[in-house]
Amino acid sequence: MTSSNSEPPRLGEFALIAKLFAPLAAKDEGAFGLKDDAARLRLPPGDELVVTVDALVEGVHFLRDDPPRLIAKKALRVNLSDLAAKGAHAKNYLLALCLPDWIDNAWLTDFAAGLDEDQARYGVSLLGGDTTSTPGPLTLSVTALGSIPSGRMLRRKGARPGDLVFVSGTIGDAGAGLELLRGKASNLPADARDYLIRRYRLPEPRLSLGRGLIGIASAALDVSDGLVADLGHIAEVSDVRISIDVRLVPLSGELVSLWGSATPAVLRAATAGDDYELAFTAPPAAQSAIADAARAAGIAVKQIGRVEQGGGVELLDEAGKGIAVDRPGFTHF
Amino acid sequence: MTSSNSEPPRLGEFALIAKLFAPLAAKDEGAFGLKDDAARLRLPPGDELVVTVDALVEGVHFLRDDPPRLIAKKALRVNLSDLAAKGAHAKNYLLALCLPDWIDNAWLTDFAAGLDEDQARYGVSLLGGDTTSTPGPLTLSVTALGSIPSGRMLRRKGARPGDLVFVSGTIGDAGAGLELLRGKASNLPADARDYLIRRYRLPEPRLSLGRGLIGIASAALDVSDGLVADLGHIAEVSDVRISIDVRLVPLSGELVSLWGSATPAVLRAATAGDDYELAFTAPPAAQSAIADAARAAGIAVKQIGRVEQGGGVELLDEAGKGIAVDRPGFTHF
Repeated sequence: MTSSNSEPPRLGEFALIAKLFAPLAAKDEGAFGLKDDAARLRLPPGDELVVTVDALVEGVHFLRDDPPRLIAKKALRVNLSDLAAKGAHAKNYLLALCLPDWIDNAWLTDFAAGLDEDQARYGVSLLGGDTTSTPGPLTLSVTALGSIPSGRMLRRKGARPGDLVFVSGTIGDAGAGLELLRGKASNLPADARDYLIRRYRLPEPRLSLGRGLIGIASAALDVSDGLVADLGHIAEVSDVRISIDVRLVPLSGELVSLWGSATPAVLRAATAGDDYELAFTAPPAAQSAIADAARAAGIAVKQIGRVEQGGGVELLDEAGKGIAVDRPGFTHF
Repeated sequence: MTSSNSEPPRLGEFALIAKLFAPLAAKDEGAFGLKDDAARLRLPPGDELVVTVDALVEGVHFLRDDPPRLIAKKALRVNLSDLAAKGAHAKNYLLALCLPDWIDNAWLTDFAAGLDEDQARYGVSLLGGDTTSTPGPLTLSVTALGSIPSGRMLRRKGARPGDLVFVSGTIGDAGAGLELLRGKASNLPADARDYLIRRYRLPEPRLSLGRGLIGIASAALDVSDGLVADLGHIAEVSDVRISIDVRLVPLSGELVSLWGSATPAVLRAATAGDDYELAFTAPPAAQSAIADAARAAGIAVKQIGRVEQGGGVELLDEAGKGIAVDRPGFTHF
């Protein structure tokens, strides 16, 4: 981990970073104790590297008062979720931290503790990074590194007419959790409220499921922009039409308690984003293999639609009629 | 390149980013046109990955009014310099961009043009990235990826008593350039002034030299914190003492015109930072191989000192007497 010329002037912070972050890099010899200009990663013979980066900004992706432990975990997990969508084995990450003046030692200690817990949970370790000061909001970027046997990576491209469409877990929970965090009043029991908020704050990257889908799924991605928007990405790059039955979109009991289960609730769930579930396509013959992979990963997987010739994403109601979607997700397209 | 849920609202920006950045990723099939969740990098058999990340923040590492083309190049080059220090072959980079409201299409176009020029110059290409909005200063991080035959990476650790100490190019130019940019009055001719400012704004990663030093240098790094501070890093991790003869530190004619060549000028140059030259150690028997590598890379390399038993960095004056250094560079240690 290098430090820029202009690190924050707080006494002891650099020593503290060394003390807090070097242990996170101790497991991997290629991190060189964060004391070199660059790190080294050796891949198993025949594997290729899978790499992704995401930036998180205070006031955009999290709030200043959010627990540092959760900020750390979310930053790591959204990147691991990208690796999961590729079927990759997660190995390492790099961390670039831009620290404003208000960050103190207690904040850094809790932040590092969050990383430590998730390193153990996902079997990854810190490989390198950079720390600098910023006159603006706390900003961090995580680069996640994984490996996969050469040529086996799951892609967004590859869905074919006749394939079925699947999604893991439940959809919309994170969107509902964000609504609750923003102060939406509800009669939800405390545990349901906690569940939905936790789904927003702490996504669960589906790494085991992703690895289990290698050679089975024809296309895959993680649902971050919103189910409809993300399936639109698959439809676009695969040059197919994706048709979703709104009755089949999996909703949690907690979400149904808050929003109900009628079509407008499903539409909201399917356009809310931040789910970090895997959505994927596969031929009908793969259904039992998918069930096996889901069982092995310990996560439900549900068929929600079909791949057809054409383009775009269509949602069908109970009567099989198309539903207009004004805003498929958060991204503009 | 993925986009966050909260991208800036300017019309057409995302389309513009796709239009500007996708061409930068066109050369490498593993970037998947920036349309997937993660990218793929295949290494030559027997090679290992070399990876580094650096963040740059407006108001800390560059100014808002700096030409976007130069910001792009500096962000890329400081990372390539880290790869150069390892002897790595530079291959790809990832870019995380946090864009404030004031960034417009003209800014982005010039920024992308800078990346395009340096991609051609260094034979690298964009592999992936992330774009988000920020309420704060423009912030970017670059993750650089390179490869090297397994086990051959140059390290900061490895200097041995009896080795000689070398540095490429000239030292202190960037520090003088920054001083001029900050408004320091001088009688320098315009071309000397331009040279020094350019050395600050546009470092030149010594990739060819780094590759040429594989198997020759016993320890290496790039000079970013300041020559004395950085040699201190080598001394620390190699557990040796490094002794520098101030008369041997290479200064450009332009720097001498501004600061002179007496010991205080050399001290300033050796503690200024941002040089991005390579400093390295090697046994005396390697001198002709080093001269060959320098010639092949087209850059001067000069012996400036010796490695001894002990610890720390010592600067010796004309009489061989130690010179006190209050502040060896910009980092605190």
